[in-house]
Amino acid sequence: MKKFEEKTVKTEPIFQGRVISLQVDTVELPNGKTSTRELIKHPGAVAVIALTADNKLVMVEQYRKALERTLIEIPAGKLEPGEEPEKTAIRELEEETGYTCEKMEHVISFYTSPGFADEIVHVFLAKKLRKLDTKKELDEDEFVELLEVTLEEAEQLIEGRRIYDAKTVFAVQFLRLQQLLNKKE
Amino acid sequence: MKKFEEKTVKTEPIFQGRVISLQVDTVELPNGKTSTRELIKHPGAVAVIALTADNKLVMVEQYRKALERTLIEIPAGKLEPGEEPEKTAIRELEEETGYTCEKMEHVISFYTSPGFADEIVHVFLAKKLRKLDTKKELDEDEFVELLEVTLEEAEQLIEGRRIYDAKTVFAVQFLRLQQLLNKKE
Repeated sequence: MKKFEEKTVKTEPIFQGRVISLQVDTVELPNGKTSTRELIKHPGAVAVIALTADNKLVMVEQYRKALERTLIEIPAGKLEPGEEPEKTAIRELEEETGYTCEKMEHVISFYTSPGFADEIVHVFLAKKLRKLDTKKELDEDEFVELLEVTLEEAEQLIEGRRIYDAKTVFAVQFLRLQQLLNKKE
Repeated sequence: MKKFEEKTVKTEPIFQGRVISLQVDTVELPNGKTSTRELIKHPGAVAVIALTADNKLVMVEQYRKALERTLIEIPAGKLEPGEEPEKTAIRELEEETGYTCEKMEHVISFYTSPGFADEIVHVFLAKKLRKLDTKKELDEDEFVELLEVTLEEAEQLIEGRRIYDAKTVFAVQFLRLQQLLNKKE
Protein backbone atom coordinates (compact mmCIF):
# COMPACT_ATOMS: atom_id res chain seq x y z
CA MET A 1 0.00 0.00 0.00
CA LYS A 2 1.27 3.42 -0.94
CA LYS A 3 1.88 6.05 1.74
CA PHE A 4 -1.39 7.69 2.82
CA GLU A 5 -3.16 5.82 0.04
CA GLU A 6 -6.89 6.48 -0.19
CA LYS A 7 -8.56 3.27 -1.31
CA THR A 8 -11.58 3.66 -3.57
CA VAL A 9 -14.71 2.28 -1.93
CA LYS A 10 -17.11 3.53 -4.61
CA THR A 11 -16.94 5.60 -7.79
CA GLU A 12 -19.96 7.65 -8.80
CA PRO A 13 -19.76 8.99 -12.35
CA ILE A 14 -21.48 12.39 -12.46
CA PHE A 15 -20.75 13.95 -15.83
CA GLN A 16 -19.03 13.14 -19.11
CA GLY A 17 -18.43 16.22 -21.24
CA ARG A 18 -16.56 17.18 -24.39
CA VAL A 19 -13.48 18.23 -22.41
CA ILE A 20 -13.74 17.09 -18.82
CA SER A 21 -15.51 14.43 -16.82
CA LEU A 22 -16.45 14.47 -13.15
CA GLN A 23 -16.75 11.62 -10.68
CA VAL A 24 -17.11 11.44 -6.92
CA ASP A 25 -15.05 8.74 -5.24
CA THR A 26 -15.80 7.50 -1.76
CA VAL A 27 -12.43 6.68 -0.23
CA GLU A 28 -11.10 4.88 2.81
CA LEU A 29 -8.62 7.14 4.60
CA PRO A 30 -5.40 5.95 6.27
CA ASN A 31 -7.17 6.17 9.65
CA GLY A 32 -9.97 3.83 8.48
CA LYS A 33 -12.61 6.55 8.16
CA THR A 34 -14.28 7.34 4.87
CA SER A 35 -14.52 10.60 2.94
CA THR A 36 -15.40 11.72 -0.58
CA ARG A 37 -13.20 13.14 -3.32
CA GLU A 38 -14.58 15.20 -6.20
CA LEU A 39 -12.38 14.40 -9.19
CA ILE A 40 -12.06 15.97 -12.63
CA LYS A 41 -10.56 13.97 -15.48
CA HIS A 42 -8.91 15.98 -18.23
CA PRO A 43 -7.04 14.78 -21.36
CA GLY A 44 -3.93 16.85 -20.54
CA ALA A 45 -2.49 19.77 -22.46
CA VAL A 46 0.61 21.30 -23.96
CA ALA A 47 1.98 24.83 -23.79
CA VAL A 48 4.67 26.35 -25.98
CA ILE A 49 7.36 28.88 -25.16
CA ALA A 50 8.14 30.40 -28.57
CA LEU A 51 10.67 33.17 -29.16
CA THR A 52 10.94 35.05 -32.45
CA ALA A 53 14.31 35.79 -34.10
CA ASP A 54 14.33 39.21 -32.39
CA ASN A 55 13.73 37.52 -29.02
CA LYS A 56 10.07 38.33 -28.57
CA LEU A 57 7.74 35.94 -26.80
CA VAL A 58 4.80 34.78 -28.94
CA MET A 59 1.54 34.99 -27.00
CA VAL A 60 -2.18 34.73 -27.64
CA GLU A 61 -5.00 36.67 -26.05
CA GLN A 62 -8.26 34.77 -25.74
CA TYR A 63 -11.53 34.86 -23.84
CA ARG A 64 -11.73 32.47 -20.89
CA LYS A 65 -15.35 31.75 -20.08
CA ALA A 66 -14.43 30.28 -16.67
CA LEU A 67 -13.10 33.74 -15.73
CA GLU A 68 -15.41 35.89 -17.91
CA ARG A 69 -12.42 37.82 -19.26
CA THR A 70 -9.53 37.54 -21.68
CA LEU A 71 -6.07 36.39 -20.63
CA ILE A 72 -2.78 36.71 -22.44
CA GLU A 73 -1.16 33.27 -22.47
CA ILE A 74 1.52 31.28 -24.21
CA PRO A 75 0.06 29.13 -27.02
CA ALA A 76 -1.53 25.99 -25.60
CA GLY A 77 -4.07 23.31 -26.29
CA LYS A 78 -5.52 19.99 -25.27
CA LEU A 79 -4.07 16.62 -26.21
CA GLU A 80 -6.07 14.52 -28.63
CA PRO A 81 -6.51 10.89 -27.50
CA GLY A 82 -3.25 9.00 -28.05
CA GLU A 83 -1.46 12.02 -29.47
CA GLU A 84 2.20 12.59 -28.62
CA PRO A 85 2.52 15.87 -26.66
CA GLU A 86 5.27 17.08 -29.01
CA LYS A 87 2.93 16.73 -31.98
CA THR A 88 0.15 18.59 -30.16
CA ALA A 89 2.62 21.36 -29.34
CA ILE A 90 3.54 21.84 -33.02
CA ARG A 91 -0.12 21.75 -34.07
CA GLU A 92 -1.22 24.30 -31.47
CA LEU A 93 1.70 26.61 -32.24
CA GLU A 94 0.86 26.51 -35.96
CA GLU A 95 -2.90 26.95 -35.51
CA GLU A 96 -2.82 29.67 -32.87
CA THR A 97 0.15 31.73 -34.05
CA GLY A 98 0.97 30.99 -37.69
CA TYR A 99 4.50 30.03 -36.64
CA THR A 100 6.15 26.65 -36.85
CA CYS A 101 9.52 25.47 -35.57
CA GLU A 102 12.31 23.05 -36.34
CA LYS A 103 12.28 21.35 -32.97
CA MET A 104 10.14 21.16 -29.83
CA GLU A 105 12.29 20.76 -26.72
CA HIS A 106 10.51 19.44 -23.61
CA VAL A 107 11.05 21.84 -20.70
CA ILE A 108 8.87 20.46 -17.90
CA SER A 109 5.50 18.89 -17.18
CA PHE A 110 3.30 19.69 -14.20
CA TYR A 111 -0.13 19.01 -12.78
CA THR A 112 -2.14 22.22 -12.57
CA SER A 113 -4.64 21.42 -9.78
CA PRO A 114 -3.71 18.15 -8.06
CA GLY A 115 -6.31 18.73 -5.34
CA PHE A 116 -9.19 17.97 -7.68
CA ALA A 117 -8.00 17.40 -11.27
CA ASP A 118 -5.59 15.16 -13.17
CA GLU A 119 -4.82 17.81 -15.82
CA ILE A 120 -1.14 17.81 -16.74
CA VAL A 121 0.54 20.48 -18.86
CA HIS A 122 3.61 19.60 -20.90
CA VAL A 123 5.66 22.74 -21.56
CA PHE A 124 7.84 22.90 -24.66
CA LEU A 125 10.41 25.36 -25.96
CA ALA A 126 10.07 25.91 -29.73
CA LYS A 127 13.46 26.03 -31.42
CA LYS A 128 14.15 27.95 -34.65
CA LEU A 129 10.79 29.58 -35.14
CA ARG A 130 9.63 30.57 -38.61
CA LYS A 131 6.40 31.96 -40.08
CA LEU A 132 4.21 29.55 -42.02
CA ASP A 133 3.40 30.61 -45.59
CA THR A 134 -0.31 29.98 -45.05
CA LYS A 135 -2.01 30.27 -41.70
CA LYS A 136 -3.78 27.15 -40.42
CA GLU A 137 -7.38 27.08 -39.26
CA LEU A 138 -8.28 27.35 -35.59
CA ASP A 139 -10.91 25.14 -34.02
CA GLU A 140 -14.29 26.57 -34.96
CA ASP A 141 -15.06 27.74 -31.42
CA GLU A 142 -11.64 29.32 -30.89
CA PHE A 143 -10.84 33.03 -31.24
CA VAL A 144 -7.37 34.29 -30.42
CA GLU A 145 -5.30 37.38 -31.07
CA LEU A 146 -1.57 37.15 -31.63
CA LEU A 147 0.88 39.28 -29.62
CA GLU A 148 4.67 39.41 -29.60
CA VAL A 149 6.21 40.95 -26.51
CA THR A 150 9.64 41.39 -24.97
CA LEU A 151 10.45 39.66 -21.70
CA GLU A 152 10.19 43.01 -19.90
CA GLU A 153 6.76 43.62 -21.43
CA ALA A 154 5.67 40.15 -20.37
CA GLU A 155 6.72 40.91 -16.80
CA GLN A 156 4.70 44.11 -16.92
CA LEU A 157 1.71 42.13 -18.19
CA ILE A 158 2.05 39.91 -15.11
CA GLU A 159 2.13 43.01 -12.88
CA GLY A 160 -1.00 44.28 -14.64
CA ARG A 161 -2.69 40.86 -14.29
CA ARG A 162 -3.31 40.47 -18.00
CA ILE A 163 -0.95 37.48 -17.85
CA TYR A 164 -2.51 35.62 -14.97
CA ASP A 165 -2.24 31.85 -15.38
CA ALA A 166 0.20 29.32 -13.98
CA LYS A 167 1.80 28.05 -17.22
CA THR A 168 2.43 31.56 -18.60
CA VAL A 169 3.78 32.90 -15.30
CA PHE A 170 6.05 29.84 -15.24
CA ALA A 171 7.19 30.51 -18.82
CA VAL A 172 8.07 34.16 -18.18
CA GLN A 173 9.97 33.26 -15.02
CA PHE A 174 11.74 30.44 -16.90
CA LEU A 175 12.95 32.85 -19.58
CA ARG A 176 14.17 35.37 -16.99
CA LEU A 177 16.06 32.60 -15.21
CA GLN A 178 17.62 31.38 -18.48
CA GLN A 179 18.69 34.93 -19.27
CA LEU A 180 20.40 35.32 -15.89
CA LEU A 181 22.08 31.91 -16.15
CA ASN A 182 23.38 32.72 -19.64
CA LYS A 183 24.72 36.08 -18.48
CA LYS A 184 26.57 34.40 -15.62
CA GLU A 185 28.47 32.05 -17.91
CA MET B 1 -18.72 44.15 -25.22
CA LYS B 2 -15.38 42.71 -24.23
CA LYS B 3 -13.00 41.37 -26.87
CA PHE B 4 -14.01 37.87 -28.00
CA GLU B 5 -16.67 37.84 -25.26
CA GLU B 6 -18.75 34.68 -25.10
CA LYS B 7 -22.25 35.67 -24.05
CA THR B 8 -24.09 33.19 -21.87
CA VAL B 9 -27.21 31.87 -23.58
CA LYS B 10 -28.00 29.26 -20.93
CA THR B 11 -26.45 27.91 -17.74
CA GLU B 12 -27.04 24.30 -16.77
CA PRO B 13 -26.01 23.50 -13.19
CA ILE B 14 -24.70 19.91 -13.10
CA PHE B 15 -23.14 19.35 -9.70
CA GLN B 16 -22.61 21.13 -6.39
CA GLY B 17 -20.01 19.43 -4.22
CA ARG B 18 -18.08 20.10 -1.04
CA VAL B 19 -15.16 21.62 -2.94
CA ILE B 20 -16.10 22.26 -6.54
CA SER B 21 -19.20 22.80 -8.59
CA LEU B 22 -19.76 22.13 -12.28
CA GLN B 23 -21.98 23.90 -14.77
CA VAL B 24 -22.30 23.78 -18.55
CA ASP B 25 -22.82 27.15 -20.20
CA THR B 26 -24.16 27.50 -23.71
CA VAL B 27 -22.41 30.51 -25.19
CA GLU B 28 -22.75 32.74 -28.21
CA LEU B 29 -19.36 33.02 -29.92
CA PRO B 30 -17.99 36.20 -31.54
CA ASN B 31 -18.99 34.79 -34.97
CA GLY B 32 -22.61 34.35 -33.86
CA LYS B 33 -22.45 30.56 -33.58
CA THR B 34 -23.09 28.76 -30.31
CA SER B 35 -20.93 26.34 -28.36
CA THR B 36 -20.80 24.90 -24.85
CA ARG B 37 -18.29 25.49 -22.04
CA GLU B 38 -17.80 23.04 -19.18
CA LEU B 39 -16.94 25.16 -16.15
CA ILE B 40 -15.65 24.29 -12.69
CA LYS B 41 -16.13 26.75 -9.83
CA HIS B 42 -13.58 26.51 -7.03
CA PRO B 43 -13.24 28.67 -3.88
CA GLY B 44 -9.59 29.52 -4.59
CA ALA B 45 -6.52 28.53 -2.64
CA VAL B 46 -3.31 29.73 -1.07
CA ALA B 47 0.20 28.31 -1.17
CA VAL B 48 3.11 29.21 1.10
CA ILE B 49 6.83 29.43 0.36
CA ALA B 50 8.39 28.93 3.79
CA LEU B 51 12.13 28.86 4.45
CA THR B 52 13.63 27.75 7.76
CA ALA B 53 16.44 29.67 9.48
CA ASP B 54 18.96 27.33 7.81
CA ASN B 55 17.39 28.11 4.42
CA LYS B 56 15.49 24.89 3.89
CA LEU B 57 12.17 24.85 2.06
CA VAL B 58 9.28 23.49 4.13
CA MET B 59 7.24 20.99 2.12
CA VAL B 60 4.48 18.46 2.67
CA GLU B 61 3.98 15.09 1.04
CA GLN B 62 0.35 14.02 0.64
CA TYR B 63 -1.78 11.61 -1.32
CA ARG B 64 -3.58 13.14 -4.27
CA LYS B 65 -6.58 11.01 -5.18
CA ALA B 66 -6.94 12.71 -8.57
CA LEU B 67 -3.50 11.30 -9.47
CA GLU B 68 -3.56 8.14 -7.31
CA ARG B 69 -0.13 8.98 -5.88
CA THR B 70 1.59 11.25 -3.40
CA LEU B 71 3.15 14.55 -4.39
CA ILE B 72 5.60 16.71 -2.51
CA GLU B 73 4.21 20.24 -2.48
CA ILE B 74 4.57 23.54 -0.71
CA PRO B 75 1.94 23.93 2.04
CA ALA B 76 -1.41 24.95 0.57
CA GLY B 77 -5.10 24.94 1.17
CA LYS B 78 -8.49 26.19 0.10
CA LEU B 79 -9.97 29.54 1.05
CA GLU B 80 -12.93 29.49 3.40
CA PRO B 81 -15.84 31.68 2.23
CA GLY B 82 -15.00 35.34 2.84
CA GLU B 83 -11.59 34.56 4.33
CA GLU B 84 -8.64 36.83 3.56
CA PRO B 85 -5.99 34.83 1.62
CA GLU B 86 -3.28 35.98 4.04
CA LYS B 87 -5.19 34.49 6.96
CA THR B 88 -5.72 31.21 5.10
CA ALA B 89 -2.00 31.12 4.37
CA ILE B 90 -1.09 31.42 8.06
CA ARG B 91 -3.68 28.81 9.04
CA GLU B 92 -2.53 26.29 6.44
CA LEU B 93 1.14 26.81 7.29
CA GLU B 94 0.41 26.23 10.98
CA GLU B 95 -1.84 23.21 10.47
CA GLU B 96 0.25 21.42 7.87
CA THR B 97 3.76 22.15 9.10
CA GLY B 98 3.71 23.23 12.76
CA TYR B 99 5.45 26.46 11.78
CA THR B 100 4.12 29.98 11.98
CA CYS B 101 5.60 33.25 10.76
CA GLU B 102 5.72 36.93 11.56
CA LYS B 103 4.54 38.12 8.17
CA MET B 104 3.00 36.71 5.00
CA GLU B 105 4.24 38.58 1.94
CA HIS B 106 2.15 38.21 -1.22
CA VAL B 107 4.32 36.98 -4.11
CA ILE B 108 1.88 36.38 -6.96
CA SER B 109 -1.55 35.00 -7.76
CA PHE B 110 -2.43 32.88 -10.80
CA TYR B 111 -5.25 30.86 -12.27
CA THR B 112 -4.30 27.21 -12.50
CA SER B 113 -6.53 25.97 -15.35
CA PRO B 114 -8.24 28.90 -17.08
CA GLY B 115 -9.55 26.63 -19.84
CA PHE B 116 -12.13 25.04 -17.57
CA ALA B 117 -11.80 26.26 -13.96
CA ASP B 118 -11.80 29.54 -12.03
CA GLU B 119 -9.41 28.26 -9.35
CA ILE B 120 -6.91 30.93 -8.35
CA VAL B 121 -3.84 30.29 -6.17
CA HIS B 122 -2.42 33.10 -4.07
CA VAL B 123 1.26 32.44 -3.35
CA PHE B 124 2.81 33.90 -0.20
CA LEU B 125 6.33 34.07 1.18
CA ALA B 126 6.42 33.40 4.94
CA LYS B 127 8.79 35.79 6.71
CA LYS B 128 10.59 34.93 9.99
CA LEU B 129 9.45 31.36 10.41
CA ARG B 130 9.31 29.82 13.87
CA LYS B 131 8.08 26.49 15.27
CA LEU B 132 4.77 26.52 17.14
CA ASP B 133 4.92 25.19 20.69
CA THR B 134 1.93 22.94 20.09
CA LYS B 135 1.04 21.54 16.70
CA LYS B 136 -2.42 22.40 15.34
CA GLU B 137 -4.92 19.84 14.12
CA LEU B 138 -5.27 19.03 10.45
CA ASP B 139 -8.65 18.65 8.79
CA GLU B 140 -9.94 15.22 9.68
CA ASP B 141 -9.56 13.89 6.12
CA GLU B 142 -6.05 15.29 5.68
CA PHE B 143 -2.80 13.31 6.09
CA VAL B 144 0.52 14.97 5.36
CA GLU B 145 4.18 14.34 6.07
CA LEU B 146 6.57 17.20 6.70
CA LEU B 147 9.84 17.55 4.77
CA GLU B 148 12.53 20.21 4.83
CA VAL B 149 14.77 20.31 1.77
CA THR B 150 17.47 22.51 0.31
CA LEU B 151 16.85 24.32 -2.96
CA GLU B 152 19.15 21.84 -4.72
CA GLU B 153 17.20 18.92 -3.27
CA ALA B 154 13.94 20.53 -4.38
CA GLU B 155 15.30 20.79 -7.92
CA GLN B 156 16.24 17.12 -7.82
CA LEU B 157 12.71 16.29 -6.62
CA ILE B 158 11.40 18.10 -9.73
CA GLU B 159 13.75 16.04 -11.92
CA GLY B 160 12.50 12.88 -10.20
CA ARG B 161 8.86 13.98 -10.63
CA ARG B 162 8.06 13.79 -6.94
CA ILE B 163 7.52 17.55 -7.06
CA TYR B 164 5.15 17.70 -10.00
CA ASP B 165 2.60 20.49 -9.61
CA ALA B 166 2.45 24.03 -10.97
CA LYS B 167 2.56 26.03 -7.71
CA THR B 168 5.51 24.06 -6.29
CA VAL B 169 7.49 24.15 -9.54
CA PHE B 170 6.82 27.90 -9.59
CA ALA B 171 8.03 28.23 -5.98
CA VAL B 172 11.29 26.38 -6.58
CA GLN B 173 12.01 28.41 -9.70
CA PHE B 174 11.12 31.61 -7.81
CA LEU B 175 13.66 30.81 -5.08
CA ARG B 176 16.37 30.00 -7.61
CA LEU B 177 15.69 33.29 -9.40
CA GLN B 178 15.81 35.24 -6.09
CA GLN B 179 19.11 33.58 -5.26
CA LEU B 180 20.63 34.59 -8.60
CA LEU B 181 19.29 38.14 -8.33
CA ASN B 182 20.69 38.53 -4.82
CA LYS B 183 24.08 37.21 -5.91
CA LYS B 184 24.17 39.72 -8.73
CA GLU B 185 23.69 42.71 -6.41
